[in-house]
Amino acid sequence: MRTVCIVGVGMSQWGEVWKQSLRDIHTDAALKAIKNSGVDHIDSMYVGCMSGGMFVGQEHLASLLTDYMGMRGLPATRVESACASGGLAVRSAYIEVASGISDIVMASGVEKMTDVDGDEATYALAAAADQEFEVFHGATFPGLYAMMAHVHIAKYGTTREMLSAISVKNHNNGSMNPVAQYPFKVTMDQVANSVMVADPLHILDCSPITDGAAAAILCTEEIAKSLGKPYVKIIGTSVGTDTIQLAQRADLTTIKAATIAANGAFKMAGKTINDIEFCEVHDCFTIAELMVLESIGKYKPGKAGEAILAGETALDGAFPVNTSGGLKSKGHPVGATGVAQVIEVYKQLTGQAEGDRQLKSSPKIGMTQNMGGSGGSSVVHIMEVA
Amino acid sequence: MRTVCIVGVGMSQWGEVWKQSLRDIHTDAALKAIKNSGVDHIDSMYVGCMSGGMFVGQEHLASLLTDYMGMRGLPATRVESACASGGLAVRSAYIEVASGISDIVMASGVEKMTDVDGDEATYALAAAADQEFEVFHGATFPGLYAMMAHVHIAKYGTTREMLSAISVKNHNNGSMNPVAQYPFKVTMDQVANSVMVADPLHILDCSPITDGAAAAILCTEEIAKSLGKPYVKIIGTSVGTDTIQLAQRADLTTIKAATIAANGAFKMAGKTINDIEFCEVHDCFTIAELMVLESIGKYKPGKAGEAILAGETALDGAFPVNTSGGLKSKGHPVGATGVAQVIEVYKQLTGQAEGDRQLKSSPKIGMTQNMGGSGGSSVVHIMEVA
Repeated sequence: MRTVCIVGVGMSQWGEVWKQSLRDIHTDAALKAIKNSGVDHIDSMYVGCMSGGMFVGQEHLASLLTDYMGMRGLPATRVESACASGGLAVRSAYIEVASGISDIVMASGVEKMTDVDGDEATYALAAAADQEFEVFHGATFPGLYAMMAHVHIAKYGTTREMLSAISVKNHNNGSMNPVAQYPFKVTMDQVANSVMVADPLHILDCSPITDGAAAAILCTEEIAKSLGKPYVKIIGTSVGTDTIQLAQRADLTTIKAATIAANGAFKMAGKTINDIEFCEVHDCFTIAELMVLESIGKYKPGKAGEAILAGETALDGAFPVNTSGGLKSKGHPVGATGVAQVIEVYKQLTGQAEGDRQLKSSPKIGMTQNMGGSGGSSVVHIMEVA
Repeated sequence: MRTVCIVGVGMSQWGEVWKQSLRDIHTDAALKAIKNSGVDHIDSMYVGCMSGGMFVGQEHLASLLTDYMGMRGLPATRVESACASGGLAVRSAYIEVASGISDIVMASGVEKMTDVDGDEATYALAAAADQEFEVFHGATFPGLYAMMAHVHIAKYGTTREMLSAISVKNHNNGSMNPVAQYPFKVTMDQVANSVMVADPLHILDCSPITDGAAAAILCTEEIAKSLGKPYVKIIGTSVGTDTIQLAQRADLTTIKAATIAANGAFKMAGKTINDIEFCEVHDCFTIAELMVLESIGKYKPGKAGEAILAGETALDGAFPVNTSGGLKSKGHPVGATGVAQVIEVYKQLTGQAEGDRQLKSSPKIGMTQNMGGSGGSSVVHIMEVA
């Protein structure tokens, strides 16, 4: 297989975007990525989107979006694995370049979530859970993660402060991200006193509903070198699945799909978690960030919370997590999130992260963990600066 | 790149399936394919589905379906390109095996379309058209294809008999297919006198709403040989896109995406249309089969109709088309159709087509053409018997 690199990235402004449609925000991110990379064409495209159908009544997205990019005719594929759709788009693009089928492939992600009302958005998102065994009976995503949080609290004594600290950290990081939906800081008290959504999760424990797109250009190392710009190599890519139904899981305090995906990526890269210097993880809820850090082996079960409170995952900590602001502050347009995570690692590794969130440690290796639903799927990428 | 083969296939019974859900019919087809192939495991899966969200409120399908197959944890990806989703699943599985990432990959497709009423199904299917510029204004798929038919009629003098002959042929072929939804013959008079849906298309010009699944096992040639069963090699795979909006097209009488995809597959395989001995094409409406045969270069523009009337595309003709019964008789569970087309070519090439629809000519090379929406995307595969 050929080495696959990332040579350029682009994102739309994330938030409640009323003046642009799905096709507009995707085109914005895609053309920025192409311009940023300096390539004069792309050979094909993979776009991650969870539910164009339920959010805006539009499937057949890959053809529509290549057309609006001015690239009618281009080979294009939409991939979906709920909120891990973006990560899968990167992985699919990786495989196509690695195989030799194509030399330059765009991986993008998009979701337009605010064209429906809150109830409709909640129902659409719930399609990432088991419709017949969970959603039909009234389950929603805050409710599912709240159940996992309660089990984690009961088993390990996880505290409100630990969860709040994740939100405070991610909002601090996101306050320096120019495309973030909520680029402001929050305090421990604000999180703890914010409105309750599903006990024990308050609104400031939850990632928002977001319109947004993200795109990255993947290519062979030969092409990456020829462009004369900084680039990173993808040295590990893996996807893991699990039952999407909580009731079928042996343990609600770990995300098995994340463990499978991380181990697969470590094996491919010839690395361990100790080689990873920083990470973007899927903090759809604060409890998710905590559980993922334990599931990928960074902290022992029940030990992530203490590390977070001790500042280990802060920008200046030993293992910075979600330097972009994470889903919590940056926003969570579900199909785009996995691509945006890869973009943040690319920026940090090439010294291009905006403002004071650029890591001072000049990291060489970073990782992303993208998650579908309540942990029914997970995609992990490990990147190394060239 | 490594050579990729098909070693086994499976389909559920297609039709209005009231006693099984989406996950059940997919599991049925998937386990049949695994048993049929003789492999003892698969490394990953790609599933094509157009709109689990709009038809049954269920996204995140790849994880759900691997779980129900008893393969929790397996890498799995859903791909979507409207009614060409199944073809894209085969192409994605091909790329993964060719790349060396995996040795044995399942390509499957599924759609459960009869759990919603007719109006809801029509709206869900319309998500394959342009929501903002077509669907919002009332366009439906029969209407879009009817417009294309009118232009073809006006330009080339295409007749009612030509369209009816396609339906008669495909129902004749489908009457010998044990999984077909409508395995009965129809007459020219029955087609011409059937209820009008969108002038000039009668109900017997239209493929039905179907519940169904299909699966195929792809692997390296080394593994295929070791299984000691007949197998076929995929020698060409290509996907083309086009604007999904009819108003943006220069010509409504050809399907440009099909031309792009066919030419791409011919180039990869080192073949021309003259090397292809039979073909499964995307006859979502009778006019589509006619237009596709012209778009892939088999007949000159405006000349397919005469060839069809002359019996050239019949089972005993010079170029049999849709020996499976096509979408018209076999049914059209949109995400599964592209996989089922590949299955028919596999069966014909390995002498396993049921009953009298097995071609007497012992063909060596066959082709599939799968289409998204009104031609916004198309996937073509060329297969050769080993």
